[in-house]
Amino acid sequence: MTATIDTTTDVFPTRLSAPGEMIERRQPTVWGTADDGPFDAPALEAHATRGFTILEDFITSEEVAGYTAELDRLATDSSLAGDPRVITEQASGEVRSVFEVTALSRAIDALSRDPRLLDRARQLLGSEVYLHQSRVNYMPGYKGTGFYWHSDFETWHAEDGMPAPRAVSCSIALTPNFPYNGGLMVMPGSHRTYVPCVGETPENYHEASLKEQRIGVPSEDAITDMAHRYGVEQFTGPAGSALWFDCNIMHGSGNNITPFPRSNIFLVFNSVENALTDPYAAPAPRPDHIGNRDVTPLRPLS
Amino acid sequence: MTATIDTTTDVFPTRLSAPGEMIERRQPTVWGTADDGPFDAPALEAHATRGFTILEDFITSEEVAGYTAELDRLATDSSLAGDPRVITEQASGEVRSVFEVTALSRAIDALSRDPRLLDRARQLLGSEVYLHQSRVNYMPGYKGTGFYWHSDFETWHAEDGMPAPRAVSCSIALTPNFPYNGGLMVMPGSHRTYVPCVGETPENYHEASLKEQRIGVPSEDAITDMAHRYGVEQFTGPAGSALWFDCNIMHGSGNNITPFPRSNIFLVFNSVENALTDPYAAPAPRPDHIGNRDVTPLRPLS
Repeated sequence: MTATIDTTTDVFPTRLSAPGEMIERRQPTVWGTADDGPFDAPALEAHATRGFTILEDFITSEEVAGYTAELDRLATDSSLAGDPRVITEQASGEVRSVFEVTALSRAIDALSRDPRLLDRARQLLGSEVYLHQSRVNYMPGYKGTGFYWHSDFETWHAEDGMPAPRAVSCSIALTPNFPYNGGLMVMPGSHRTYVPCVGETPENYHEASLKEQRIGVPSEDAITDMAHRYGVEQFTGPAGSALWFDCNIMHGSGNNITPFPRSNIFLVFNSVENALTDPYAAPAPRPDHIGNRDVTPLRPLS
Repeated sequence: MTATIDTTTDVFPTRLSAPGEMIERRQPTVWGTADDGPFDAPALEAHATRGFTILEDFITSEEVAGYTAELDRLATDSSLAGDPRVITEQASGEVRSVFEVTALSRAIDALSRDPRLLDRARQLLGSEVYLHQSRVNYMPGYKGTGFYWHSDFETWHAEDGMPAPRAVSCSIALTPNFPYNGGLMVMPGSHRTYVPCVGETPENYHEASLKEQRIGVPSEDAITDMAHRYGVEQFTGPAGSALWFDCNIMHGSGNNITPFPRSNIFLVFNSVENALTDPYAAPAPRPDHIGNRDVTPLRPLS
């Protein structure tokens, strides 16, 4: 299956001066078939309908321990102080995310090429894939602040020049996700609807938006409408669980006042047939460590 | 059963200059027996152990609609503008709570005397009861901010002069409590442990603390310890559910980024044998609309 991408007229307009109509997406969510990889037909159908899939025990507890040690190493690596790939909490200065983490961690690079991930990403996107973005997230206990509702694709389209919603994210939990420690909330089925956002993108907006996003967020009216239409579900589960979710699903997270921290590895696979162009609604593309422009297909480690 | 209250040496020290030891409480949680009211013996035992009880369908959906209309009336009553009983959101100025609501609403006054509430409060506290505090809370969608972990009794003891933990709160939900719209979190069993807090109480502290509490909150070490010992549970359920919880249970709530608002009626019953004295750790008692000093027993409407 191939997408027909119209690069002359933007079919996903956003960062508008006034609220735009919601757009029902024409592109599939699942591009491959049950013959193409580990997901069976019912699993693919559920993913297409709901826009996300939770897989418990996706990695083992030994792997969780290993990656947790790797995260600790990255968060305390003094050679990374001041590195633009390291994002700190606005209030406390603690490390919140490390971007382009596959370049900084051999173990996470290997994970991204592991057949458990790579084969599923290829199957969902129906093509060779590459990593559009990779990062690890640290949400500390007590002071963890959430992210307001948004579609990742809206940002990737506007600011990175991603033509179509043919990307999928895999979030692997390294700590338990309880319903009450600031885990991800998704609106099942919302990935089929594209919500244009209001507000022009400022220059170098990513420097602020990765801490707190104010532009590229849908209106409260749009979120209210979608929440009543689709409802809200949470990504809960033990450490080692994986959440696969479509790039256009509406999601967000609340704060975390519990002592239970939340860490995860976050990998975004994009189809090589969906290579980035110029940003659709921003003065310049974001840096490569946020929106990778090298579409060399991801290969298993030999 | 009667409590032996030592008013010369404070057995519940707090607002200290340095962290104090946690204190295992000697007073019972449940003072009455199954013969004294609607709770049966297993329900009383569960309440004594866990420190809270959730009762679904506590009021009917017609009653929910009626009280919701009453809350709307109070929130928009222009004659209450500037009334000290009306607490507004720090950021938005919207009404967050209305105190002494039984004096402002005949319907809520009648509810507080309804046998469903009064008989349970008397049974749990093993005596005649009166209302220490009554209020309605409005947590709007999107902008709802939570409350950090705390024990109500710590505040009522320190700032209102409540001698012993012989009070119980009843929170009646007028909107659904989902796991994700900022509902109450409790630590089951934590009501048996009293956690002294650090920091001297400023004058007129209630004017700020009802919006955001900074003194009278336990240390992160204490909360971490208790969260691992007791775990965390959430008060979830449809509109019309009631949560009965002991005055000393550790509880808190996160923020609410969903469109789903959260409103409730909150009634605190105190034993008439537990009348307020001078505050144990504050320059002066809080106003009567926050900590009522009239111990006239609450009677059913005839």
